[in-house]
Amino acid sequence: MPDILLHDIVAALGGELHGDDNTRIDSLAPLDSAGPGALSFVSHPKYRQGLAICKASCVIVPPDLKDTALARGPCIVSDAPYLYFARLTQWWRKAMDAQRAPLGRQGGVHPTAVVDASAQVHPSATVGPLCVVERGARIGALSQLRARVTVGEDCKIGERCLLHSGVVIGADGFGFAPDGDRWEKIEQLGAVAIGDDVEIGANTCIDRGALQDTVIEDGVKLDNLIQVGHNVRIGRNTAIAGCAGIAGSAVIGPQCTIGGGAIVLGHLEIAAHVHISAGTLVSKSISKPGHYTGIFPLDDNASWERNAASLKQLHRLRERIKQLESDVKK
Amino acid sequence: MPDILLHDIVAALGGELHGDDNTRIDSLAPLDSAGPGALSFVSHPKYRQGLAICKASCVIVPPDLKDTALARGPCIVSDAPYLYFARLTQWWRKAMDAQRAPLGRQGGVHPTAVVDASAQVHPSATVGPLCVVERGARIGALSQLRARVTVGEDCKIGERCLLHSGVVIGADGFGFAPDGDRWEKIEQLGAVAIGDDVEIGANTCIDRGALQDTVIEDGVKLDNLIQVGHNVRIGRNTAIAGCAGIAGSAVIGPQCTIGGGAIVLGHLEIAAHVHISAGTLVSKSISKPGHYTGIFPLDDNASWERNAASLKQLHRLRERIKQLESDVKK
Amino acid sequence: MPDILLHDIVAALGGELHGDDNTRIDSLAPLDSAGPGALSFVSHPKYRQGLAICKASCVIVPPDLKDTALARGPCIVSDAPYLYFARLTQWWRKAMDAQRAPLGRQGGVHPTAVVDASAQVHPSATVGPLCVVERGARIGALSQLRARVTVGEDCKIGERCLLHSGVVIGADGFGFAPDGDRWEKIEQLGAVAIGDDVEIGANTCIDRGALQDTVIEDGVKLDNLIQVGHNVRIGRNTAIAGCAGIAGSAVIGPQCTIGGGAIVLGHLEIAAHVHISAGTLVSKSISKPGHYTGIFPLDDNASWERNAASLKQLHRLRERIKQLESDVKK
Repeated sequence: MPDILLHDIVAALGGELHGDDNTRIDSLAPLDSAGPGALSFVSHPKYRQGLAICKASCVIVPPDLKDTALARGPCIVSDAPYLYFARLTQWWRKAMDAQRAPLGRQGGVHPTAVVDASAQVHPSATVGPLCVVERGARIGALSQLRARVTVGEDCKIGERCLLHSGVVIGADGFGFAPDGDRWEKIEQLGAVAIGDDVEIGANTCIDRGALQDTVIEDGVKLDNLIQVGHNVRIGRNTAIAGCAGIAGSAVIGPQCTIGGGAIVLGHLEIAAHVHISAGTLVSKSISKPGHYTGIFPLDDNASWERNAASLKQLHRLRERIKQLESDVKK
Repeated sequence: MPDILLHDIVAALGGELHGDDNTRIDSLAPLDSAGPGALSFVSHPKYRQGLAICKASCVIVPPDLKDTALARGPCIVSDAPYLYFARLTQWWRKAMDAQRAPLGRQGGVHPTAVVDASAQVHPSATVGPLCVVERGARIGALSQLRARVTVGEDCKIGERCLLHSGVVIGADGFGFAPDGDRWEKIEQLGAVAIGDDVEIGANTCIDRGALQDTVIEDGVKLDNLIQVGHNVRIGRNTAIAGCAGIAGSAVIGPQCTIGGGAIVLGHLEIAAHVHISAGTLVSKSISKPGHYTGIFPLDDNASWERNAASLKQLHRLRERIKQLESDVKK
Repeated sequence: MPDILLHDIVAALGGELHGDDNTRIDSLAPLDSAGPGALSFVSHPKYRQGLAICKASCVIVPPDLKDTALARGPCIVSDAPYLYFARLTQWWRKAMDAQRAPLGRQGGVHPTAVVDASAQVHPSATVGPLCVVERGARIGALSQLRARVTVGEDCKIGERCLLHSGVVIGADGFGFAPDGDRWEKIEQLGAVAIGDDVEIGANTCIDRGALQDTVIEDGVKLDNLIQVGHNVRIGRNTAIAGCAGIAGSAVIGPQCTIGGGAIVLGHLEIAAHVHISAGTLVSKSISKPGHYTGIFPLDDNASWERNAASLKQLHRLRERIKQLESDVKK
C-alpha cells in the first residue's frame, strides 16, 4: 500500500493545493466510487453535483469548481485536471513500482528474446521476454517491447515507443498478382518506419511496404487488434481504436481519430482532423475535416427485419414517390 | 484408433441404451456423414428423416425419436442429447489421449514459459510453452494456458479456465488525455480479474483497467480475436463470438450472446439475456432482454448501389412523402 | 545496394528487352515515384501519361504501350507486366539476400522453437524462433513458419506455405452445449488441414474442427487478423483480406475474394467466383457468381443522423406511400 502525502504529489506535479498538505493518499479513483484515502478528479462543471457529495480525500478540479470542491475538503486546482490526472497516474505508477520487486522493464534485452546480431537496440530500450527482433531492425532510445512482440527485418521503431504483447511489425503486406486461376506472390521489399512516442496495442499488426515503407508518424496511438496494411501512412498524433482495419496505401492525416471496428479502404486519402465513428466503412477519400459516420442503426430484431426488407426496395420507393408527385401535380 | 464399446460409454455417461451394448464405436460424427462404427446424435424432431437413413452404429436421441432410432439400430435415449454429446466429446478426448504419448498439459509450467517469481500458479494449473506470466499474476486450480499466452502484472485467472494460444490478458487499456495536439498517457493502474470456468479464444485481448479492474465473470466464453477494453464487465455465462469488440467501461449482463464482429461502444450497459446479431454496432444501452440487430442487408452490388444512393436521400424522401400527404388531403 | 544490370533480369525472367541491356538497376519503384536507377512497371493503358513522363531507367510494359515506353528509354515488353513484376520482386529479394548475412530462413527448426517429438517437420521446411508445433502436427516441404507461430495437435500444413508471425492454427473451435444457465464444452476432436501454396497473415487464427477437419484448400491467401471458425472449408485460390471473420461450418467456394472486415455467418455456402465487398455481412448462402455488397454508405455525421432516424421509419414510410398511391388513384 503506498504511503503518499498530498504534499508529495504537488511537489512533483505542481497545481494549486487547498487544504491540509499532510493528507494521506492511498489510491486514485473515479469520482463516483472514490472514498476516504482516494484522490480523484473532475474536469467538467456538469459533474458538480457528483463532486459535492464525493468522499475522496482530495479532488483535482478546474478553477470554476474550486468553491464546490473546497466545501467538501482538500482540492488541487489545475487549468487542465484531466491532463494533470494523466501525469499523476504516471507518477503514481513509478511510486508504486519503487515499493515492489523489479519488473524487468528498466532497459535491456530479456534473455529469452531472439534478437538478430545485426539489429540495433538502443541501450536504454527494453526488449521483453520471448520477443523477436529480426535482421537489420532498429529499436530507439527508451522504447519498450513488452512480451512476445515481433519486429521484422529492417523495421525501425523510434524513441519512447511502447509496443504491447503480441504486436507484429513488418509481416508481409498482402500482395499477389493473378496468374490465371492462381496467385503469384509479390515480395514485400519495403519495411515499416515508426516515429517517436507511438503506442501500439496488443496483437496489432503493421505490414511492411511492397516497395517503399509503411509509415507511422510521431505520437500515433493504436489500440489492440488493429490491422495496418502495406504502404499506409498514418499522420502525427492520430489515434485509432481497437479492431479497426486500414487497407493498403491509405493515407490518413494527422490529428484524426478512428473508432473501433472502422474499416478504411485502400488507396484513400483522409485529411487532417477527420473523426470517423466506430463501425464505419470509409469507402472514399475525405478532404474536409469533420465527423463522418456510416452505421446501420440498432433496433430490436423484428423492427430491423421490417426496415431491412423495405431498404432493399428503397430505390423503387423513390421512383414511386416521383410518380406520385407527378400524378398529384396533374 | 480407439477401441470402445457402447457399454463403456453408457457406464461413464449414463443414458438409456437400446441395442447391443457390445457394439464397437470408433468415431463420433455428425448425422449426415456418420457411417458404420460412428456414434452420432440428433436433438430435434426436424432431423427425423436424416435419422431414419443414418448409417451410424448408434445415435443419441431424445425420447420422442426413440422409435425412429430403434427402427435403424442401437440408440441412447437422453432428455438432452446435445448436452450428452458434449460430455461424450470430453470423455472421448480423454479416452483418445490415454492411447497416445503425453501432450504435456497435465499440470505444471513448461520449461520455456517465463513466469515471474512473484506470480502464483496453482500446482494443478498448466502454463504452456512460451507463455509469459508477469509479476503478481495468479493462475487458479486446473486452469490451462495453452501456448504463447501472456498474463500481465497482477491479473488473476480463476479455476478451470482455458486460455488459447496468443491470448493477451492485461495489456494497457487505451487511455490518453489530450495535451494540445499530442496525447499524454494515462497509466493503467487496474488489472484484469477473470472468474472460474472461463474460456478465451486464440489471440483475444482483455485490457487492464485504468483505476479499477476489468472483470470477466464466471462461465464467460470468448471466441478468437476479440477485443475487451479497460474497465469492461462481462456478466456470468455470457458468450461472445469472434472478431467482436467491447469498448471501455461497457457493462454486459449475464446470459447474453454477442455475434461475431459486433461492436459494443464504451460506457454502455446491456441487460441480462440480450442477444446481439453478428456484425451489429451497439450504440446505446439496452435495458430490455431480447434480440437486437443493425446490419445493412446483403445484395448484389448493382442493387446495393442503387439503394445506398437512395438511402442518402432518405430524410428528403420522408419530407416529400409528408408533402404529398398534405397535397393529397387538400 | 544491389548492383544489377537489365541483362541479368531478362536472363532470369525473360521478356523482350528494348534498350541498353547494360543499364544499371538499383531499385524497384512505383511509376509515380521511380527515378533514375529504378525499374518500374505499368499494366494498363490508362497510365500512359504517367509512363510518358516517368524517369525510371526501365519500365515493364504491355505490347500496346511499347511505343510510349521506348520514347522515354529502355523497356521490357511482357504480355502480363504485373505478373512479370511479381516474379521480379521474388528474384530481387533473392538477389538482395545473397548480399547480406543469412536470415535463418533457409530450412530447419530454430533452437527456440518448441516442436513435439511426434510432429513431422519436412527437412526443407523452416520453423522460426519461438514457434510451437504440437503433437502429431505435420509441416510440408519448403513451408515456412515465421516467428511465434502455433500449429496445434494433429494439424497439417502442406507444401510451400508461408505462415506469418503470431498465426494460430488449431485452437479449439467455439463449441458449447447449453446446460441450464451454463455452457458445457464440446471438445473439438477434428484438426486443421491446410493445402499447398497457402499464405496466412500475421495473428490470423484457424480453429480445429469439432468432429471433422477445418479445410483450407491449395493456393488460398489469407491476410492478417482473420478468424476462421471450426469446420469451415475455403476453396482453392480464394483470397480473404484482413479482419474478416468466417463463422463455423461456412463453405466458401474456389476463386472467391472477400474484402476486409467482412463477416460470413455460419453454415452458409458461397459459390465459386463470388466477390464480397469489404465490411459486408453475408447472412445467407450465395449460389451465383458475382459481386455482393451490404454497407451503410459513409456520410457526414449530421446527414447520417437524419437518414438513420428516417431508416428506422422506413417500413412505415413504405406503407404511407402505398396509402398515397391508393388515395391518388381514387
